[in-house]
Amino acid sequence: MTDQATSTIVPVKLGDRSYDILIGGGLIERAGQEIVSRAGKTMRAAIVSDETVAGLHLERLQAGLTAAGIESTPVVVAPGEQSKCFATLETVTNAILAARLERGDIVIAFGGGVIGDLAGFAAGIARRGMGFVQIPTSLLAQVDSSVGGKTGINTAHGKNLVGVFYQPQLVLADTDVLNTLSLREFRAGYAEVAKYGLIDRPDFFAWLEANWRGIFDGGPERTQAIAIACQSKADVVERDEFEMGDRALLNLGHTFGHALETATKYDSSRLVHGEGVSIGMVLAHQFSAKMNLASPDDALRVEKHLRDVGLPVSINEIQGQLPPAEKLMEYIAQDKKVTRGTLTFILTRGIGQSFIAKDVPPSAVLSFLKEKHPA
Amino acid sequence: MTDQATSTIVPVKLGDRSYDILIGGGLIERAGQEIVSRAGKTMRAAIVSDETVAGLHLERLQAGLTAAGIESTPVVVAPGEQSKCFATLETVTNAILAARLERGDIVIAFGGGVIGDLAGFAAGIARRGMGFVQIPTSLLAQVDSSVGGKTGINTAHGKNLVGVFYQPQLVLADTDVLNTLSLREFRAGYAEVAKYGLIDRPDFFAWLEANWRGIFDGGPERTQAIAIACQSKADVVERDEFEMGDRALLNLGHTFGHALETATKYDSSRLVHGEGVSIGMVLAHQFSAKMNLASPDDALRVEKHLRDVGLPVSINEIQGQLPPAEKLMEYIAQDKKVTRGTLTFILTRGIGQSFIAKDVPPSAVLSFLKEKHPA
Ligand SMILES: NC(=O)c1ccc[n+]([C@@H]2O[C@H](COP(=O)([O-])OP(=O)(O)OC[C@H]3O[C@@H](n4cnc5c(N)ncnc54)[C@H](O)[C@@H]3O)[C@@H](O)[C@H]2O)c1
Ligand SMILES: NC(=O)c1ccc[n+]([C@@H]2O[C@H](COP(=O)([O-])OP(=O)(O)OC[C@H]3O[C@@H](n4cnc5c(N)ncnc54)[C@H](O)[C@@H]3O)[C@@H](O)[C@H]2O)c1
Ligand SMILES: [Zn+2]
Ligand SMILES: [Zn+2]
Repeated sequence: MTDQATSTIVPVKLGDRSYDILIGGGLIERAGQEIVSRAGKTMRAAIVSDETVAGLHLERLQAGLTAAGIESTPVVVAPGEQSKCFATLETVTNAILAARLERGDIVIAFGGGVIGDLAGFAAGIARRGMGFVQIPTSLLAQVDSSVGGKTGINTAHGKNLVGVFYQPQLVLADTDVLNTLSLREFRAGYAEVAKYGLIDRPDFFAWLEANWRGIFDGGPERTQAIAIACQSKADVVERDEFEMGDRALLNLGHTFGHALETATKYDSSRLVHGEGVSIGMVLAHQFSAKMNLASPDDALRVEKHLRDVGLPVSINEIQGQLPPAEKLMEYIAQDKKVTRGTLTFILTRGIGQSFIAKDVPPSAVLSFLKEKHPA
Repeated sequence: MTDQATSTIVPVKLGDRSYDILIGGGLIERAGQEIVSRAGKTMRAAIVSDETVAGLHLERLQAGLTAAGIESTPVVVAPGEQSKCFATLETVTNAILAARLERGDIVIAFGGGVIGDLAGFAAGIARRGMGFVQIPTSLLAQVDSSVGGKTGINTAHGKNLVGVFYQPQLVLADTDVLNTLSLREFRAGYAEVAKYGLIDRPDFFAWLEANWRGIFDGGPERTQAIAIACQSKADVVERDEFEMGDRALLNLGHTFGHALETATKYDSSRLVHGEGVSIGMVLAHQFSAKMNLASPDDALRVEKHLRDVGLPVSINEIQGQLPPAEKLMEYIAQDKKVTRGTLTFILTRGIGQSFIAKDVPPSAVLSFLKEKHPA
């Protein structure tokens, strides 16, 4: 209650799909109150979570909801990327229906990006669309996946290839909940924070270079960084909700990153998403330098900062065997951001000057990859 | 080609989701041409169909698409309501991805309402939304399910409880394709045609009473009736795309009808949807008369016309055992159109004067059902 004044609000302006992101301490306890005061009524809720997050934080969330008059039913799935599949989607959707939720009731995604993507998809299809609230609990989910309305699951044909655009009505990013996140996952999320600086906020990147320790230590810099990251994402999403153009900028580092995730078979013991993005962003800057678009010094600066915070910055830091450059190139070509025949990449003219490059010659990418990853 | 001038166009005006419904002969052969000329480009297509429709008509459709430069991949599922399930949704979605369709490519629903609902849902979630064209082949699909953007599947918790609102970019209603439809299915679709007259078009109902034979025989009345039905549905959908209010009028006869479908366990040998709607519409008029809202003569007129065309008009025409009235009442209460506690029904003040009645006393419905269906 006493924390109320301290939460920062980032509005996401999408016409009748607009919503607020609240960022601050104590938001899990206060969730019920925030939801009811904004909705002007109570309702029922299904809380979709994973075993890890539920074990640590579910009780507090439910207590706050109950106190605010919201009856809730937990729907708990196994943690990890493998829950983003059709079978779990069916289980979660059926659980929402079994809880007898109506269209005015809400589905709460309570977990990392996996839970946000899965629960958001289920919320978007159960009764052709339920109320939906995101309470992201990983740094990655707070600064990236919970904002913007992309939901989805994976199939044999690739990651996130099936889903809906479905905006939440409210996002509650509790900065305290991140204290139980592993350092490795925290760092992975940090890669996405840094990404916003690299896309188009050079001052933010410089600020991160000076202040990243406060973010990791839970100082006021944490709330500040999450708010700027959310604002950055909101800006892009407001310009291009349905990913017809500009939104592709958010994929900086992701084309290389996804190829590496595929190469490691999404084995999180070897590479988690944010680590792939970290390496991918360094590669994107190096490749841009090689194409004479940006100075090599910028690539070095990106590499230094990400290494400082403890993130991997080169392909050879990945444990175990990797397929050869030719194979990585194939994975890149299969990536869904590729339009028939031509390669679209996010490249850069320097820190904070990223742009969408169409018609990147595949041969140039391949020879660059061979340099960075000799067989 | 020579038929081109004869197709009737009904526009559906939904802002940037607007589209046309084309109604007329020869549209299957001309589909490729119509799609390409409207899109201003060629593309790839996945054709979702069921075994029956594919066996009868797929070749002609594919030939026309190929001639127009559209490469197509058929995705054929078993006919019948049981294909509207998560497992088949997964199969169809994966087949769309396996065909390497991109967001600008199209999914074609080629079949009855089952295929439209299933393929539309898959089109809405594959790559978070593909191009989508409806080529409805049953009368019911042409006048009802292909228009308005509701897609979905069934679960153990009820029919159509999972899905998305996803509008097609074009609907091609080929009046010739209906010639291979069984008389029983044709009649079932006709119940939905008559429904539009009963909702708010008394003149159309009177016209149907005089002209229904031409519709069944494939005369010009068929195109005319389908066009008026589509226009009626489009009007309602334009007022209430996401079913927050008025769209509920389309459920005239459906609350009783769904209860009967549930009671017969969706066994199509006993009752198909349109037959349930036929009985349901008669019941809705009789119940309205009993509540002194409408004249009993109107109920008699509805009953007579539907019996004339060969549709069942009373509960006791259904083959086999039916559960008692109390059980039917339970099914009604479970229907998704019921808002917590209160019963919402579509009732009428006479032919073409239907309205949404909230707070219908369940006891009145039960005693009416006991009259119509004594144990
Ligand atoms: N929708 C989008 O726009 C978008 C954007 C980026 C990423 N994503 C998706 O997000 C997913 C990755 O998100 P993620 O990194 O959060 O993965 P995740 O959900 O798997 O979370 C990572 C791990 O942290 C644990 N965890 C989460 N919160 C915790 C907490 N407070 N304390 C302790 N443990 C906690 C989880 O149990 C899990 O084991 C991917 O599936 C990716 O595709 C989606
Ligand atoms: N989305 C909506 O707004 C909406 C509205 C009304 C009904 N529906 C749904 O539509 C479905 C019922 O539609 P339906 O009655 O078309 O069912 P259907 O798709 O099962 O078709 C009925 C039968 O006719 C066959 N058939 C279809 N076209 C044929 C042709 N030209 N020649 C020979 N056989 C043909 C099919 O193979 C099937 O066996 C239900 O699932 C219902 O929930 C949806
Ligand atoms: Zn990412
Ligand atoms: Zn119907």
